[in-house]
Amino acid sequence: MSIRLLTASAVALGLVAFTPAAHAQDAATVQQAIVVRDAAMRSNIAMDYVTQLTTRFGARPAGSRSEQQAAAWAADYLRANGFQNVRIEEFPLVGWERGESSAAIVGDNAQALVAAALGHSPATPRGGVEAEIVRFSTFEDLQAAPEAAVRGKIVYVDLGQMHPMQDGSGYGPQTRVRGAGPGVAAAKGAAAFVMRSVGSDEDRMPHTGTTRYVDGKPTIPAFALAAPDADQVSRLVALRQPVRMRLTSTARTYRTTSQNVIGDLPGATRPDEIIVLGSHMDSWDLGTGAIDDGAGGAITVAAAKAIADSGRRPARTLRVIFYGSEEVAQPTAQTGNGGGVYARGQGATLDKHIIAGESDFGADRVYALRLPAGAQGSDFQKAATRVLYPIGVLASDRVETEGGVDVGPMGPLGVPFFGLAQDGTRYFDLHHTANDTLDKIDPAQLNQNVAAWAGLLWLIADSDVDFRAMKPATTPATPTR
Amino acid sequence: MSIRLLTASAVALGLVAFTPAAHAQDAATVQQAIVVRDAAMRSNIAMDYVTQLTTRFGARPAGSRSEQQAAAWAADYLRANGFQNVRIEEFPLVGWERGESSAAIVGDNAQALVAAALGHSPATPRGGVEAEIVRFSTFEDLQAAPEAAVRGKIVYVDLGQMHPMQDGSGYGPQTRVRGAGPGVAAAKGAAAFVMRSVGSDEDRMPHTGTTRYVDGKPTIPAFALAAPDADQVSRLVALRQPVRMRLTSTARTYRTTSQNVIGDLPGATRPDEIIVLGSHMDSWDLGTGAIDDGAGGAITVAAAKAIADSGRRPARTLRVIFYGSEEVAQPTAQTGNGGGVYARGQGATLDKHIIAGESDFGADRVYALRLPAGAQGSDFQKAATRVLYPIGVLASDRVETEGGVDVGPMGPLGVPFFGLAQDGTRYFDLHHTANDTLDKIDPAQLNQNVAAWAGLLWLIADSDVDFRAMKPATTPATPTR
Repeated sequence: MSIRLLTASAVALGLVAFTPAAHAQDAATVQQAIVVRDAAMRSNIAMDYVTQLTTRFGARPAGSRSEQQAAAWAADYLRANGFQNVRIEEFPLVGWERGESSAAIVGDNAQALVAAALGHSPATPRGGVEAEIVRFSTFEDLQAAPEAAVRGKIVYVDLGQMHPMQDGSGYGPQTRVRGAGPGVAAAKGAAAFVMRSVGSDEDRMPHTGTTRYVDGKPTIPAFALAAPDADQVSRLVALRQPVRMRLTSTARTYRTTSQNVIGDLPGATRPDEIIVLGSHMDSWDLGTGAIDDGAGGAITVAAAKAIADSGRRPARTLRVIFYGSEEVAQPTAQTGNGGGVYARGQGATLDKHIIAGESDFGADRVYALRLPAGAQGSDFQKAATRVLYPIGVLASDRVETEGGVDVGPMGPLGVPFFGLAQDGTRYFDLHHTANDTLDKIDPAQLNQNVAAWAGLLWLIADSDVDFRAMKPATTPATPTR
Repeated sequence: MSIRLLTASAVALGLVAFTPAAHAQDAATVQQAIVVRDAAMRSNIAMDYVTQLTTRFGARPAGSRSEQQAAAWAADYLRANGFQNVRIEEFPLVGWERGESSAAIVGDNAQALVAAALGHSPATPRGGVEAEIVRFSTFEDLQAAPEAAVRGKIVYVDLGQMHPMQDGSGYGPQTRVRGAGPGVAAAKGAAAFVMRSVGSDEDRMPHTGTTRYVDGKPTIPAFALAAPDADQVSRLVALRQPVRMRLTSTARTYRTTSQNVIGDLPGATRPDEIIVLGSHMDSWDLGTGAIDDGAGGAITVAAAKAIADSGRRPARTLRVIFYGSEEVAQPTAQTGNGGGVYARGQGATLDKHIIAGESDFGADRVYALRLPAGAQGSDFQKAATRVLYPIGVLASDRVETEGGVDVGPMGPLGVPFFGLAQDGTRYFDLHHTANDTLDKIDPAQLNQNVAAWAGLLWLIADSDVDFRAMKPATTPATPTR
């Protein structure tokens, strides 16, 4: 009887379920993870997926016909690549369409400006809004401003250019303004809200992105200026007061549906233990969503496929989810984003979700692995370092606590997260702009992502690692000379 | 009576000691910090200091005559710039001199290699060491190797090139090998130890750095190869076995002294409350210690001087310390490094050390402010953001716990730390090599450092902020779209 037949019989008899689970740090597990990693590095699945997705469907706004069609296509793509139990989880959504918009300085120094309406901002009245600008250079200054300084005016917030950082940390301070700024301005009686684009480029191309509802209602018309136009307006305000601006927008919301696409590679011996690989299907309307987040779908599906093609199925189930509707705010938190829909729909099975990770930061290389607090200094972290360090991924001393917008809702329900941190130095040059197109993806860096995901996932999927049971080590870090 | 005379009289009468202390977040304090920041940005002190230091004294190895002379000169520099109570704190040290060294492949494929002895490694026997190489690609593999595989051989550890990262996190995994590798190899009977340089460049220039004593004794002769030579040796080992290497070193240790140079700008109203601005005076012998750490001294002295020149003395004392002997390991922890000497010498006055920071990461721009855990989300952090964000420095969600090698010894004694994190992307191209010279400093980035230090220090020095009393906030971070 050959080894192969013996194995097949053992599976048939259900014997393998009694095989003791391997540790991630076992030499054989690490060695197989390295084999999977190197095969993944040579895979062409990621580039194929993102090329097809962005070419066939272009922009995929949440709830749009193109997002729906892309989801149906992606489900077929999963089936064609051997995923099982492929399903589409539909949910209602308030969609948003940009329509037409314009921005211009009027009166003295009249000139057109390059701007984009912010996602889920309301239309201007027919004929537009025209008013004097009041400029703020920090969000706190806007918050502290008296109503009299703002009422009837167009609030303009310019924090200066976003600072590019490897870890993308320049984004947070700026995006806060985009989310909450229009609401703060509206509460003080502003006529409209304008801000510098949240981006690190100097292209004449605005960055859109969502703004928030307040008490379930839209606030005021809101726009982002391209960086050169933001410079221009700030210079004009410094030169002379008052500066008047005119804004138009025909944006509208509508009732529609979005959907999560879910496919499994069932585990060989413990299929009820699930590892979630997340990304999102929707994109902003200006580009084709190649880096945000076609790349994430490409990386996760290719990593799972590399494991499936390795000749041996790991013990646990790998679940790829293309979440619907990540990009947009909704009137209430209980509707309309795929991450929340999935988490609420799982119920008690979340207890069997071993860990979740999300790829949603472009296609540039992974440089660090972040694990749950308990895994710091663990044998698992050391095993992962053996697999990932040779391809440039360091074990980070930062703990992964958030997961990301899509997998995040599982966190309060007890699911641990990992993060494979990608280099974000140029991500915000392109993010949410018309420039987010396929050509921006470097295939070599894309595949380094696939390799990092595949190698790491093998260690988790074919071992007994239990992140919930791990307790943080207490050895403090010491400075190095 | 003019305002000026009133103030002068109040000082004379000691009345100002009863002035209620300002909060860092008070508008006037923030405004003055911005004024100080902008003046610091235009200062020429930092470039003057590091130019004079590196030109006059060149390399400044710990305990060398040039380090001693540089310390005396720096004390005069502080006095000439208005610092008070300038003093030199001398301490005994085991010094190390490189002497002559060589490395070569011998036998088949004989060729010379570019290498440097590691700091505090012992000499080879006269005539050198010649033996077969045994190569390891991880530190763990060396630790796990049986004695029989290592005894009598030259251990060669090549982790592959260090990965450049903005936060310098690629350094830790590699420098561990340099510190502990020779000891591990010696315990298994190795004849000598060789490693790939800890560096991110491909210049044919080795990176030195210290290795550690074991039980107070030196281990075995130890060397770092330049990256192209490390590539070469690893290729040779892959091509054929055995590869033989010959190493010579006349390195020696000697008894000497080093010293800390300390100068104060006494606080106007609470001079017993001290803020430490640290850097180190010693350098490696191969370069002139411009980025490591002439720049740190330049940044800290220029920041303090910008505050002194602002026309108003802050409430608290600013203490600049040029620490001696940062770079080298010593036979025991209780001797020979300036940071430990200072901390142990202070005794109870450490209770009045408000906070300490250290500049020891080159001269490239500051991108993040790290504060003690209790200051996360605090009014102080918000005030600092108002001062620092406009010059590209973000409030980090990373807590500063280590301080650095020099100020670090004060941590266990209760002194909080701040960190102004510098961009480390190119730092390890130059670090500990002959290439660490003045021309590598970008004056604009150097002065951005000075501005960040000066603005931050004003907020701390002229307010009542008490980092020991601050408790961490509990609001969790949430992912952003």
